[in-house]
Formats: sequence, C-alpha cells, structure tokens
Amino acid sequence: MTFLEKLRRSIAARDSLVCVGLDPEVERLPEGLPRGPEGVLRFNLEIVAATKDLVCAYKPNLAFYEALGRPGYDVLWETLAAIPRDVLTIADGKRADIGNTSRQYAKALFDVLGFDSATVNPYLGEDALTPFFEHANRGVFVLARTSNPGARDFEELPVVGPNGSRPLYEVVAARVRGWNRNGNAALVVGATVPAELARLRELTPELPFLIPGLGAQGGDLEAAVATSRLEAPAVISASRSILYASSGPDFAEAARRAAREMRDAIRRVGPG
Amino acid sequence: MTFLEKLRRSIAARDSLVCVGLDPEVERLPEGLPRGPEGVLRFNLEIVAATKDLVCAYKPNLAFYEALGRPGYDVLWETLAAIPRDVLTIADGKRADIGNTSRQYAKALFDVLGFDSATVNPYLGEDALTPFFEHANRGVFVLARTSNPGARDFEELPVVGPNGSRPLYEVVAARVRGWNRNGNAALVVGATVPAELARLRELTPELPFLIPGLGAQGGDLEAAVATSRLEAPAVISASRSILYASSGPDFAEAARRAAREMRDAIRRVGPG
Repeated sequence: MTFLEKLRRSIAARDSLVCVGLDPEVERLPEGLPRGPEGVLRFNLEIVAATKDLVCAYKPNLAFYEALGRPGYDVLWETLAAIPRDVLTIADGKRADIGNTSRQYAKALFDVLGFDSATVNPYLGEDALTPFFEHANRGVFVLARTSNPGARDFEELPVVGPNGSRPLYEVVAARVRGWNRNGNAALVVGATVPAELARLRELTPELPFLIPGLGAQGGDLEAAVATSRLEAPAVISASRSILYASSGPDFAEAARRAAREMRDAIRRVGPG
Repeated sequence: MTFLEKLRRSIAARDSLVCVGLDPEVERLPEGLPRGPEGVLRFNLEIVAATKDLVCAYKPNLAFYEALGRPGYDVLWETLAAIPRDVLTIADGKRADIGNTSRQYAKALFDVLGFDSATVNPYLGEDALTPFFEHANRGVFVLARTSNPGARDFEELPVVGPNGSRPLYEVVAARVRGWNRNGNAALVVGATVPAELARLRELTPELPFLIPGLGAQGGDLEAAVATSRLEAPAVISASRSILYASSGPDFAEAARRAAREMRDAIRRVGPG
C-alpha cells in the first residue's frame, strides 16, 4: 500500500484528522504512575487504549524516549506494538544528515522500528532527504514552517528569487514538491499562522500536511482543517493538550474526552 | 571545566586537531568481524585503541547506532566508555526541535550519555538551540555550511539583508555568534569550499569549528587548518578514510596510519 493510501484509509476508518503526539515527560506523568520508564510505558499504553478509535495517527517524538536512556528503546517499541495497524505512525525525529548517514536513519526508523512515516529537517538539502524518499511506501514529512517562536529566525527569512523575495519555508516547500518522485513527500506546517497555511496549500496542492501547534501552542483550527483535501489530507496534531488533560487518575478518560472534542471540532469546521 | 578549556586541552594533550568520526557501517566491517552489533563494537574498540593517542576528539554519528536497533544503544555506550576522558566526545546527531523537546534531546546526549558536545541543526531557530546552549559546560556545534552536495539547496540561498544579500549559512553563523552567551557555541563548516571557510572565520572569530569533509569527501586541508587558532580551535574530522583504510585484518593498524598521516599533514600546514 502506498503512503498516501495508508494515510487516506487511516483517516477514513475513524473519520478523524486527529493525530496524538506521544511525547511523555516523566515529570508530568499523572499521580500514581512510577516516575521512570515503566511509568511512561503504562501512561502511553493507557493513552493509546483510550484514544485509538478517535485518531488517524500517533506521532511519538523520539526525543522523549531517548531521554529515558537505554530503556527508552523498549518503551518506544512496546508503544508502537500497541498501536492498531490501520492507524498511521509518524516517527517525529526531525532527522537529516549527509546522504550515506541519512540512509542509516531511514533504516532505523522504517526498517528496524517499522514506522509508516517520519519527520525530517530540510537544512542539508536534497541528498539528505533522498534516502527517506527512496522508501517509496513510507511518508516523509519535511519541516517547512514550524510552530515555534524560532521559526522567525531562519524559516521566515526572505530569500532572493527571480520574482522578488519569498520566505525560506516557501522555497523549501516548492523544492520538496519537485523532489516528490515517489508520491510520498509531505510537509510539516505549523497551525500558528493561518495565512501561511493557506499560501502553502496553494503552492503545494498535492502534498499532505502534518499540522502541529494546536492545543498547547494555540493554533487556528479552522485554517488548519481548511487545508485538508481528499488527495492531500492534513493530519492535525496535538500532544500536551491531550496527554495532560488531567494530572489525576482519570488522565486516560480526560485524554479521550480531549481527543474526541478535537475530532468533533474538526468535523464541525471541516468540509463535511 | 568549560567546553572551550576541555577542547583546548584535548588538542594540546596530543598536539592534534584530528577527530575520528565513529560511523561504523555493518556492511563495511573488515573481514573476520561478525556482521552485527558485536562486530561493530569490536571494530569501534579496536579503532579507538589504535588511534586514541593521535586524536583530540571522537565523533560517533548516532544514525549508525540507531540503525542497529536496540543493541545499538549498548554499542554506543561501550564505545564511549573506551574513550579516554581527556579526549573530547561529540554526539553527531544534528538534533533540534521546539524548545520543550530539544530539552529532552540535550538531556539524552549530555546528561544520560555524557557527551561533551553535540551537533545541532539551526532550521527551527533560537528556541530549538537554547536548551543545548543552557548546558553551559557542553559544546554546541551548529550546522552552518555542510560538506554535502545538498548544501547548495538551502544553505547557500541568498537572503535579503540591509546591505544586499548573503548566503543563509552566513546568517546562521552570525546569529549563532549572537546566541553565544555561555561561550559554548561552535559551528560545523565543511572543508569542501576554502573561501567559505575563510569568510566564516572572519565573521565568527571566537567560535570553534568542526570541519568534516576531509578524507572521503575530499576537502581542502590547508584551508581548514588555517581557520584554527588558540582561542577558537578547528577540529578536523575524517570518518571513512580512517575507519576503512583497510578492509583486511590489519584495519586497526591501517586506521592508525591514516590518523597519524592526517595529524602530521595538519602539523605541516599548521601555524606551527
């Protein structure tokens, strides 16, 4: 199955664009869970069990597992094992390196861990992304315009072009479109600036979007949903607002409620 | 000890600017070593034993360990344990993410694995790098101009500024200089374009450089060495040309010879 087919099916199966970012911080685990790798695993398993009929994707951010040291690998592995096969998995690692090294990252994420897709960083250019694109049935979400304050520092810099200047992230998006030989390229676009979302959708009509920045980072849901279409869906991601909806023993129930509310809010503003 | 002190001492201790990139590919292990994690570990331990009196730094690229799956963590751990304490360690992972996530990466690399320094990717801007800089005694090598062909795609794009345009990597270098509040910022600058090396040294006179791209990638040694100075040393890195100097049972001896030749070549062109 191609990446795009898998993505579309995972959305259709539960009629949901919601992606839950599985970014468990030991310090923020709910009361009653041990503050270590076992606690993180129990937390993840409960979050997945409570939300798996409401979402199209899970996006573990690798940093949170690496911070656990050696046991983090098993926590990630066991978490992935609990995710239903028809839900898309996104390795959020923002990796990239020179070609022969990126090949190793793609192997680690796609072949060893079996992720359906991964986020990558464009700074090093095409040969750093090619090994990911070459896994033709896996999705490659390239960072374009991220949702953090630092997006201003480089992503938004005006780059000189033949018809005046345009922001670096637009150049990135246009290049990624050109590199999409296997139909598995996609973009990461923050929800924090609605006009930029619309402009990127115009520039790259056939690329799926991963849109973080809803929830804790306060993005614009309507503008995010408006970029989603059948041939190029938008996966809309939230982490902290779902994971930490409650810090008490009812955390899983609260996460379920938050995920359902987000799914329903998307349905309400969606094209219907 | 500050990062800069540690770096200077590691250079002075062996009068060497050589950094060996510990990037072991299973497929390229010398004859006789098992093609799996144990083989990689034995390979690394022999490479370190054969070169540790000739180098100022070791730079394991994390991708090669992650590609080994779960056992990769132990291979990395055991490799680090074999590196003398007075040789600088560089976690080559080119990480970066939004602030609260970068904090987890910095924790994983500096607190859990105990690396002296790490490479990071600037694309997401200041808040993605701050958690690394805040580890005030660890070094943070920010990618500026890399040595791969893809450097042309984005790093070299002309960015509009008050006095005309300049390449993105120069803007990155200038910003990193401004963010160097803890004296632990440094740059990654490929050896492949001598004029760019000189220009970046001019722009950022107090930032240490990590210069890859010698050896297999064919950079200019003289231009690289010319950027090194006492207050802002250049660490000059080679991986494949040392690791795979021989594919036979004499691989460690051949690696030693290649490292010594590189050290001596640097001494010959160096400021003396």
